[in-house]
Amino acid sequence: MSGHRNLKEKIPVVILGATGCVGQKLVQLLTNHPWFSIAALCASERSIGKSYGEAVKWLMPTPLPRQYAQMIVQPCEPIDNCSLAFSGLDSLIAKKIETSFAHAGYLVVSNSSCHRMSPDTPLLIGEVNSDHLALVEKQTSKGKIITNPNCSVIGISLALKPLMDQFGLEMVHVVTMQAISGAGYPGVASLDIYDNVIPFIEGEESKVEKEPLKILGTLTPQGIQAADFKISAQCNRVGVTDGHMACVSVKFKVKPSPEKMIKAWRNFSSLPQKLKLPSAPFHPLYYFDEPHYPQPKIHRSMDKEMAVSIGRLRPCSIFDYKFCLLSHNTVRGAAGAALMNAELYLHNQIRSF
Amino acid sequence: MSGHRNLKEKIPVVILGATGCVGQKLVQLLTNHPWFSIAALCASERSIGKSYGEAVKWLMPTPLPRQYAQMIVQPCEPIDNCSLAFSGLDSLIAKKIETSFAHAGYLVVSNSSCHRMSPDTPLLIGEVNSDHLALVEKQTSKGKIITNPNCSVIGISLALKPLMDQFGLEMVHVVTMQAISGAGYPGVASLDIYDNVIPFIEGEESKVEKEPLKILGTLTPQGIQAADFKISAQCNRVGVTDGHMACVSVKFKVKPSPEKMIKAWRNFSSLPQKLKLPSAPFHPLYYFDEPHYPQPKIHRSMDKEMAVSIGRLRPCSIFDYKFCLLSHNTVRGAAGAALMNAELYLHNQIRSF
Amino acid sequence: MSGHRNLKEKIPVVILGATGCVGQKLVQLLTNHPWFSIAALCASERSIGKSYGEAVKWLMPTPLPRQYAQMIVQPCEPIDNCSLAFSGLDSLIAKKIETSFAHAGYLVVSNSSCHRMSPDTPLLIGEVNSDHLALVEKQTSKGKIITNPNCSVIGISLALKPLMDQFGLEMVHVVTMQAISGAGYPGVASLDIYDNVIPFIEGEESKVEKEPLKILGTLTPQGIQAADFKISAQCNRVGVTDGHMACVSVKFKVKPSPEKMIKAWRNFSSLPQKLKLPSAPFHPLYYFDEPHYPQPKIHRSMDKEMAVSIGRLRPCSIFDYKFCLLSHNTVRGAAGAALMNAELYLHNQIRSF
Amino acid sequence: MSGHRNLKEKIPVVILGATGCVGQKLVQLLTNHPWFSIAALCASERSIGKSYGEAVKWLMPTPLPRQYAQMIVQPCEPIDNCSLAFSGLDSLIAKKIETSFAHAGYLVVSNSSCHRMSPDTPLLIGEVNSDHLALVEKQTSKGKIITNPNCSVIGISLALKPLMDQFGLEMVHVVTMQAISGAGYPGVASLDIYDNVIPFIEGEESKVEKEPLKILGTLTPQGIQAADFKISAQCNRVGVTDGHMACVSVKFKVKPSPEKMIKAWRNFSSLPQKLKLPSAPFHPLYYFDEPHYPQPKIHRSMDKEMAVSIGRLRPCSIFDYKFCLLSHNTVRGAAGAALMNAELYLHNQIRSF
Repeated sequence: MSGHRNLKEKIPVVILGATGCVGQKLVQLLTNHPWFSIAALCASERSIGKSYGEAVKWLMPTPLPRQYAQMIVQPCEPIDNCSLAFSGLDSLIAKKIETSFAHAGYLVVSNSSCHRMSPDTPLLIGEVNSDHLALVEKQTSKGKIITNPNCSVIGISLALKPLMDQFGLEMVHVVTMQAISGAGYPGVASLDIYDNVIPFIEGEESKVEKEPLKILGTLTPQGIQAADFKISAQCNRVGVTDGHMACVSVKFKVKPSPEKMIKAWRNFSSLPQKLKLPSAPFHPLYYFDEPHYPQPKIHRSMDKEMAVSIGRLRPCSIFDYKFCLLSHNTVRGAAGAALMNAELYLHNQIRSF
Repeated sequence: MSGHRNLKEKIPVVILGATGCVGQKLVQLLTNHPWFSIAALCASERSIGKSYGEAVKWLMPTPLPRQYAQMIVQPCEPIDNCSLAFSGLDSLIAKKIETSFAHAGYLVVSNSSCHRMSPDTPLLIGEVNSDHLALVEKQTSKGKIITNPNCSVIGISLALKPLMDQFGLEMVHVVTMQAISGAGYPGVASLDIYDNVIPFIEGEESKVEKEPLKILGTLTPQGIQAADFKISAQCNRVGVTDGHMACVSVKFKVKPSPEKMIKAWRNFSSLPQKLKLPSAPFHPLYYFDEPHYPQPKIHRSMDKEMAVSIGRLRPCSIFDYKFCLLSHNTVRGAAGAALMNAELYLHNQIRSF
Repeated sequence: MSGHRNLKEKIPVVILGATGCVGQKLVQLLTNHPWFSIAALCASERSIGKSYGEAVKWLMPTPLPRQYAQMIVQPCEPIDNCSLAFSGLDSLIAKKIETSFAHAGYLVVSNSSCHRMSPDTPLLIGEVNSDHLALVEKQTSKGKIITNPNCSVIGISLALKPLMDQFGLEMVHVVTMQAISGAGYPGVASLDIYDNVIPFIEGEESKVEKEPLKILGTLTPQGIQAADFKISAQCNRVGVTDGHMACVSVKFKVKPSPEKMIKAWRNFSSLPQKLKLPSAPFHPLYYFDEPHYPQPKIHRSMDKEMAVSIGRLRPCSIFDYKFCLLSHNTVRGAAGAALMNAELYLHNQIRSF
Repeated sequence: MSGHRNLKEKIPVVILGATGCVGQKLVQLLTNHPWFSIAALCASERSIGKSYGEAVKWLMPTPLPRQYAQMIVQPCEPIDNCSLAFSGLDSLIAKKIETSFAHAGYLVVSNSSCHRMSPDTPLLIGEVNSDHLALVEKQTSKGKIITNPNCSVIGISLALKPLMDQFGLEMVHVVTMQAISGAGYPGVASLDIYDNVIPFIEGEESKVEKEPLKILGTLTPQGIQAADFKISAQCNRVGVTDGHMACVSVKFKVKPSPEKMIKAWRNFSSLPQKLKLPSAPFHPLYYFDEPHYPQPKIHRSMDKEMAVSIGRLRPCSIFDYKFCLLSHNTVRGAAGAALMNAELYLHNQIRSF
């Protein structure tokens, strides 16, 4: 699957917040990872000392692998002989723990929102802004922290990247329909979402309006200069297990033809594809001609659940164009994104083995 | 419930397309209607001659009343001693049948899309454009046809009406999340919509972009002069039984404060309220301060399922404001709308009994 | 709606556990109750002192009435000038609080499981065992406690009652498919139940196997002598908002014809019907001939949500017969049951006003 | 994945009813099959001559492979150089077409119900009754027909097999909760099943009561002698995409301990496992100790979607024991079952390459 030869010895990693939704997805994705192996599963007080099988309410669509079920859950503290941590910690407690790991010399690859907008922290999407990795030089700790964006933001930013580069963006209007897995566990009560739509997700719209401007911004000696287009977002929760949809309207600096937009998406390929990173999709973006595509149930699993599916490009009477996009929120939008970020950061080191 | 004294004898009505979704809802709503009583249930070849109980696949949330279960389904042809027809016919066959009823002297109150955009046909929402009823004078048939708008359009037009009147509209951007009952029966296959969102409803976006401009237009001697603002629509099907949501962004001619907008909605009342028509809600529009309201499951039943619920008013970085709205698609958006249209048309005649 | 003349002054009641699911349903059902009016809404520490509108996460399908939204939540302590309490308290804390209200002279009408199997407490279904009310004479407190059964048990016991009386029961095998509202709030996480069935509900099977034997037992001077047939139960959670289904197989002492069973159900009527209690359904049991009935979505709302719907009676190759039944779990199975129990207990007192 | 060396040339197969649900699943499962390659996709008049991509409403959770999308749909007629047909045809038309393929010399591996109960046709589950394959000797056509059971029957029969062999069965009581994909496409209307349970599936209970007795019967020179225990079944449709659940109660000839039952399940292995057939699961039966397992969402994907998951074994007050089981209805219960049947039939032939 990877273009690299298998490593003689895999790189040991710890998972912070291993019992949560993102933590579980990380466990699942790391089960057969060619580079990384799980050295420790770390979680909160409540779980420490139990076997992971006891501590976790396993929610993944395939049963928990036996070797992890038997591991004893550890506290969120650095361990010996390990220097890579994936964090699925809740934002409320992530900052302190992640920082302590960075000071202990770890590379912390975080899905949490707490460091995302820090000026010295890369908010990284492998295919979009790999050059932003240079930001870590500004971090003063022995180790480093890199973050991935909010689950809705990743799909949107990926779809906008080739459009911005080729045609320039002026305004982007987004309405999302987001899956319940985006709220973690126990997350959304079934009584709240069954036969329902909830037109509100705490803090989400602000993230969708701000994070893409950093991601699509320009690296300068002074840090990231934010992209200069406007985003307006409305975020809804719908009764779907996995897969965030977005209805997007865009106004360009130079209005392209629809054909050019589709070509820009279909031809888009970037560093993770070139490096054949283990978690990289073959194509980051797929455009579908079928008028009723993309759909969460069908397209969230595209290309190892790491692709963004786009469809329904058509003219807009207010903006230039409208389209829909879909990405798998817990893989492309969270755990898979974190994995690929680590792969990207470490690929030189891996190659030199 | 109504401000009118009960009629000595109720007005007999026929229901065209009585076995369909809208037809069934009409049957349900007419069960205890103070003015109207069902004289005939009419449907297609397949059902004629059967009892309605046999012919219909009853989908309403309360059992089929026995007196209707036993009625024999009739062909879609005018009957004696009756001059009011409610039509829930499929658009493909509605035009011919509705026209024949009009020629036979009936008032045809139609939910079908086939006559909606005809220059001489009122596209009527009781609280918005009751003056458009005058259009029927242009119809040359012995009887008349009046129509109600598409199920998504009614809620949107109602919410826009007081805003347009007080502040003037420039641009309206709409993304809908529509219930499965909007597609009729059998309609959406469960395999298509379970755990899914479908970002496409055939013909829907065009209706949402055109119908409000006629409804909110001005009656002139030459006919309706369409409203002059721009609408852009994106329509999605979601896994909700009843209740269409819309995420709306608006740009005004004169930007009001949020307080003025909320006041405009809360104070909005119109002719059906003044006349206390049996199907009129006490308030057409409700604004909720709770950040997670409105929701289909909670608010679709507001005020006899005839109110529009609005919430989440907030500034927009591209337009002036964003908000959400919800209405019950098969009542406020279809059968209840048709009933109230008939009540409005006939109220003078009723009063004179 | 009731056969009683309206009272000059309604009887004041307190609701214990008012912010929970059953508490909310009690608030909703008491909104226009002809006999009772809410004097106090009581809940736990967390809610005390807040307005009910702030304290409650309102889940009912109609908006919270304004007069209750503004009431200040009280602690769960007896108040002056009131002697009737409805309890929707969690079983863990109900015992102590309910007992203290009984000692203070209250009639406590409880939906909690903590006192259900106490020898001196009636486990009451108005239509089934109203004579069991005499048990309260054995209670030594100044006030009294009466309870209603588990939400699944009520429908099953009602359907079995006329069968037992006429044909004698030997064995009853039950498999339930229960709605998410049965688990309270937040209750079942959406990630657990979406696109899923959970074949386990903590403690439920034991209740379904024991409670009906007390309910259908015989009052003797020594207390209730349990009915002597066998019950075996399997309980599942399914993705339905309201309405518990049960697939039942029965073996009789004297095997009747199917026609006699249906007649027994259709003719069943009891004291609450005779007294025309405000919450009593017109018929407690409805049998449907349609092969695909009953269904939660259609029949849970039968007869004020207080009827049990039965269908699909057919021979069983192991037992005598098989059939399905459905009842609304939060009304017939909880809040409505409690209300009717209070009405039954108080009807003499009410009549004598 | 298979214990066989890859064939130099794969065996060409035709798929009858290729656009239906089972047909699509066959296409998906054959995409990377080590022995078989698709030579023709056959369907009804309506689809013939179109590309498969145009003709099919693709419902699988992964996009349609391009090479099949471009194949032209053929009529359901034998083609040259091919002698193996998988049939996912509707029962109404399957008999005639399947028989004509058998007469043309094909091995017809059918998922249709039309030939299942024919005395000379094996009703085959690889792990249960591979000896029944000898029945085909009684067929007089040049080719042969073998069938797989109903989707609910396969899981039940597999779980009963080791119990019957070791302890003897007297009575089996089954209540199913079946997924919507079992009804094909468009199948169950979303308006019928959303927020609902339907306690009726046409013809299903009869199949569940009869087919296992043939499958678990004994091959004699006179044909299959049916097993002699009793089955009673109740079948329900629930709102789950894939995965049929069954609540089972059993009475044995010799009552075992629970430990012995679990051991019988966990140790069960059979010919397909021994032969390492490509579609065979590593274990046919998994028993889970967790009280809330099995669940459709988690366990339907066990072991290539070909395993049966069992849980909740506990005593029954009427029968000896109760338990739950789950299997993937369109794979283990249909397309995967057909594939493994063909593999079993052909394995000698394959080995001799």
